[in-house]
Amino acid sequence: MPFVTFLDYAGVAVFAATGALAASRKELDIIGFLFLASVTGIGGGTFRDLILGIPVFWVINRDYVWICASVAVLVFLTAHRFESRYKLLLWLDAVGISAFSVMGAAKGLVVTGSVSVAIITGMLTATFGGILRDLLAGEPSVLLRPEIYVTATLIGAAVYTGADIAGLAPLLASILGFVAAFIVRGGALRFGWTFPAYKGRPGRHPDDIP
Amino acid sequence: MPFVTFLDYAGVAVFAATGALAASRKELDIIGFLFLASVTGIGGGTFRDLILGIPVFWVINRDYVWICASVAVLVFLTAHRFESRYKLLLWLDAVGISAFSVMGAAKGLVVTGSVSVAIITGMLTATFGGILRDLLAGEPSVLLRPEIYVTATLIGAAVYTGADIAGLAPLLASILGFVAAFIVRGGALRFGWTFPAYKGRPGRHPDDIP
Amino acid sequence: MPFVTFLDYAGVAVFAATGALAASRKELDIIGFLFLASVTGIGGGTFRDLILGIPVFWVINRDYVWICASVAVLVFLTAHRFESRYKLLLWLDAVGISAFSVMGAAKGLVVTGSVSVAIITGMLTATFGGILRDLLAGEPSVLLRPEIYVTATLIGAAVYTGADIAGLAPLLASILGFVAAFIVRGGALRFGWTFPAYKGRPGRHPDDIP
Repeated sequence: MPFVTFLDYAGVAVFAATGALAASRKELDIIGFLFLASVTGIGGGTFRDLILGIPVFWVINRDYVWICASVAVLVFLTAHRFESRYKLLLWLDAVGISAFSVMGAAKGLVVTGSVSVAIITGMLTATFGGILRDLLAGEPSVLLRPEIYVTATLIGAAVYTGADIAGLAPLLASILGFVAAFIVRGGALRFGWTFPAYKGRPGRHPDDIP
Repeated sequence: MPFVTFLDYAGVAVFAATGALAASRKELDIIGFLFLASVTGIGGGTFRDLILGIPVFWVINRDYVWICASVAVLVFLTAHRFESRYKLLLWLDAVGISAFSVMGAAKGLVVTGSVSVAIITGMLTATFGGILRDLLAGEPSVLLRPEIYVTATLIGAAVYTGADIAGLAPLLASILGFVAAFIVRGGALRFGWTFPAYKGRPGRHPDDIP
Repeated sequence: MPFVTFLDYAGVAVFAATGALAASRKELDIIGFLFLASVTGIGGGTFRDLILGIPVFWVINRDYVWICASVAVLVFLTAHRFESRYKLLLWLDAVGISAFSVMGAAKGLVVTGSVSVAIITGMLTATFGGILRDLLAGEPSVLLRPEIYVTATLIGAAVYTGADIAGLAPLLASILGFVAAFIVRGGALRFGWTFPAYKGRPGRHPDDIP
């Protein structure tokens, strides 16, 4: 199995696990686990394939659906063992965005040949599943958290794309992209890395604006 | 008109009505009614067609758009007569998800020939319109309600698909799927049926996690 | 450059600016600005192209991506100068929906030849970017604001489509559509125009319904 395919399976599995953990935080039933795990696991890749105009990956290869279902059942049976499901969710999400930023960029580059499109499909693939998960589960969006998040997907996609353009072997380019993204997001989670935020003031609530 | 086509029209109409009822709960104007009715009525099927890679149904057949518009006007004129619009919304939604779980599975089965894809497109078609409605109207998501919901769409899609694979006539398979889904969701609404929920504890708010 | 192409670029730029302003209200970092600007700027057109079954515009022409990125950086550097970023956001949004209601209708009409589809793709293109922005930024949805909003996009799309069908030159039809939409939305913002709202009562919270 090429490493980029492995990253795809691994990304689907860990994103599915974050969806199932969100379901456990909301105390949903087993079908709620299956649903949130599937939407989170395959949501980003579905969006990527729609934008690239290619057949949706899980419609062609149903393995992905079974991965999501298996992960959902596993989390349903074990989630109570974890001390903080939300921290686990954030770390699995970090693995997932690292894998998908590479996988999304790889598919975007193969289909369009454009570096800028590849970087964007990498970012979209990596972030979209988590956005859906948080919207559907009514969680605060990971996008709005203070630590670095989207940047990690940008770096993962850019490192992979740059390495591929530079002629590195796909395996090496994939590993470099994955590791780069994970160092950035993992460091942000572990050490609270942030960018210099916008030097401003928070927005007022619309009702308070004269 | 084949029964499955009738289910499609009926599903669009009742989902459009739930969108218009949500608009009335938010006291929107007539255009808000038209917008929410249309998004809710055709949202699930649009998503299904995009994923299956086939032309979007209402772009080809504009009847669906006029159905949504007519239903929106009708609800705008009559919604004040109902004692509880939210209960009516939930019951119409139950009819809608029953119709769409069959219709989505039927289209998925015809296009891909895969049982697992058919069941998923049935579930997605049935749930997606309501998800959009609740997100846009700022209502609590039906997905997160305690009674059985997604399960009904799974059962409707699975019963239809199983019956079709087993060689039953399309009419009979459609009726069986519709009735199965409606019994599950209707029973859940009427008697508060729930699954054994996840044996756990609710998630803490992210800010409260050390 | 045909005027309708200019409207497309201008619409992407002003919507990107509203996304970046929402990012500044949430005090995100520069990558958050880039992300929200891009999603808001190209979201509506992406949805339009998916529904029409044509290649997504920014995958083919990457100028749009660079416009969004440039606007995001510009807003990041200047947003603190504005006394009320939310008012600026609303007015730029008004320009954006006016441009996109025409551009969406034009593309829908060319691809399908159907007046009703053209009007709907005009409305969807104009509203979808702002819906995404508000969902992702956790802002109250512009759709639910009391003043006229969706109606302006309906009028812009209908005026353009009617003028085009009536045989007016594309430039004139585009200007008429843009001006009609902007008068309606601008008047709503300036003078608080509303439709006669639904004569009813607000919805109760689901938990309060017996």
